[in-house]
Formats: sequence, C-alpha cells, structure tokens
Amino acid sequence: MQSQEIEKLTKIIAKLPALGARSARRIVLHLLKKKDTELPALIGALQEVAAHIQKCKICGNFDTDEICSVCADTTRDVDCVCVVQDVADLWAMERVGLYKGQYHVLGGILSALDGVTPEDLNIEGLFQRLQNGAIKEVILALPATIDGQITAHYLLSRLKEFPINVTTLAQGIPLGAELDYMDDGTIQMALSARKKLV
Amino acid sequence: MQSQEIEKLTKIIAKLPALGARSARRIVLHLLKKKDTELPALIGALQEVAAHIQKCKICGNFDTDEICSVCADTTRDVDCVCVVQDVADLWAMERVGLYKGQYHVLGGILSALDGVTPEDLNIEGLFQRLQNGAIKEVILALPATIDGQITAHYLLSRLKEFPINVTTLAQGIPLGAELDYMDDGTIQMALSARKKLV
Repeated sequence: MQSQEIEKLTKIIAKLPALGARSARRIVLHLLKKKDTELPALIGALQEVAAHIQKCKICGNFDTDEICSVCADTTRDVDCVCVVQDVADLWAMERVGLYKGQYHVLGGILSALDGVTPEDLNIEGLFQRLQNGAIKEVILALPATIDGQITAHYLLSRLKEFPINVTTLAQGIPLGAELDYMDDGTIQMALSARKKLV
Repeated sequence: MQSQEIEKLTKIIAKLPALGARSARRIVLHLLKKKDTELPALIGALQEVAAHIQKCKICGNFDTDEICSVCADTTRDVDCVCVVQDVADLWAMERVGLYKGQYHVLGGILSALDGVTPEDLNIEGLFQRLQNGAIKEVILALPATIDGQITAHYLLSRLKEFPINVTTLAQGIPLGAELDYMDDGTIQMALSARKKLV
C-alpha cells in the first residue's frame, strides 16, 4: 500500500552499494521526515555533482574541470605516476597526503572471472602518458589480491620497454595489527620479506 | 583534493541513517560512475517524492494524497485502529498483509531520557478520532521496550474512558527462534504467559 513514488525511490536506493531493502526504507523514511531540510539539500547536492563533476581527461579522477585539481597542480611532481584501480584508492592516497606525484586510474583490474581484459581498462592512456619521457617512475598501487597482482604483472611486462623505475607498495603487517589476528599468508609474506635492522 | 561538490554530497549522504563516511564515499563513487543512468534516476525519484509525498491528515502515513491510500480504502474496517510508533512499523504491518483496519502513527514514543512528552506525539489526533464512536478497538502495536511499554501504559490510562477494547500485540518467542539464543527476559515472559494446549 506504499505510494509508487516511495516504492521507486526505495528500490533505487536499495541498489546502491552497501545498502539493502531495509536500510533503503530507513533512509527514505528519514528523508520524508526531513522533507523540508535534508531532502532538498540531498537533491541539490546530487544535482550539482551531476552538473559539474566529470572524469579527468589525463588521470581518470573525478573533478569539476576537464583536467582534475591533482593533474592541474603545478607544485606536484610530474616525473612519478601512481597507478590505482579506482578513484576511491586515489582519494585514500590523497587523504594520507604524503604522495606528491601524479595518478593514473585504471578503472578496474584484470579479472578472468569477471571477463575484464586490458581493453576494458584505461591502460593505453597510461602508455600514452609515458611516450614523452617525462615520467621516471611508475608506482603500482594495485590491490594485494590475486587479480590485483595479475594486473600488476601484466603492466610490469609492458612497462619493461620503458627506461623507468617501476615500484609497488610495500606489503607486510599493517600498523597496529596483532600477529594473532593476521592471516597466515600475510605472516608468511612479512617473514620472507623481513627487514634487517642492525 | 576532492571537489567541493563531491565533498558536500558525501557529507550529506554520510549523515543518513545506517551510513557513515566510508559507505557514503562508496555510494558517491558508484553514482559518479553511473552518472548517465543511476544518478539522474535517483535525482528524479527524490524529486518526485519531494514534490508529491505528504503526511496523511488522518493517520500520519506518508502518501501522495492528503488522505493516504490506507485511510481512503473503503474496503478496510473502520472500527479498529492500530497505533504504531512510526511509518516504518505501519509499512511492516502492511507487508504482512493480514491487518485490514486503520492505523494511527504516533511519530515516536514517550522518552524521559530524550525528553519526549505526550505533547510531542500525535496523541491528541488519536483521541479526536475516537470522539465519533465509530472505533471499537485500539491495538497498541508499540515497541516491546521500556519506553514503548510506558507509552502503551500512558495511552491505556487515557483510553479507559472510552467504551472500546484496547489490545496489544502478543509477546513471546519469535517464529524460528532457538531458546538457547533468546534473552532471559523473553523466556521468562513467554513462560509466565504460556498457553494451554489441551
């Protein structure tokens, strides 16, 4: 006996990541209760994003301009490119604030299971950026999963042709972790890659 | 380095129930990736809800008309009113589809802790509906929490003046539950309210 409008909105919200039917209902009810404040604010913010945000032509980041604020920032190093799976990973790196180079968003990783081939990813864009010789280092900041490592291997095999350094993020025990709670693979990997202190 | 538009939208979404900063970022990224399909669909659905949905003048349900489809449905019983805390509870009852009477949404429950008094709830509306004598039964379908029971007691004390039946939902072990996993209070209550079979 729900109105069509409410049902339609609930279905659309339920399909968003991390949400389901129950949380969608809660959100819709919350918005209905705040019909004069939060609902128009949400609509306005969504409209602004829809109207102004676009994909950066260079790196694939989302921003208001054709060239994103990271690529347009002349104070950043232009000789280093960090290759990430997704814009979320770019944002995570930027939250840390340590990295001062460029990015390249692949838009996914290779996956035999999901049928993702190199043509589906923004890989050619990366090699085009390497053509002019300004880039001296490529950091492969891809997920530490099987598919992530396969993607890194594929990129490495093609990056070998260029006179550049190719690096990857260090793997090991994360900060604050207790050994007891780490999976065996991580402990094995951290042990075999152990660092000499003295 | 995120654009203002993305940051603003993320903050608004993060404040919705059941969501936080991380899930808001995931949702915003998902919408950015589906900028031509899901984002306009969501905006459209939100706008339709904002434009058309209103609170029912009789029961407090949300619907497209001033009188909601439940109250306007002439095939439903008019002599029974089910009092619920929230529209979400009304929807839950309607999903079951067994109840064929009217509803009354309080818009909350009494709470000494949160400072919710009878004046804050749609209680007078309920007694106004009782004035014409058409209603023969009031079902108190309020939460089985302390505050819910205090609210039920308060309503009961005032409903006594009317020549009507006041009932409440049965309490006990929920369907499919294992005793081992039930809290002590529920088992005690179910035991003391046990039913004679033969």
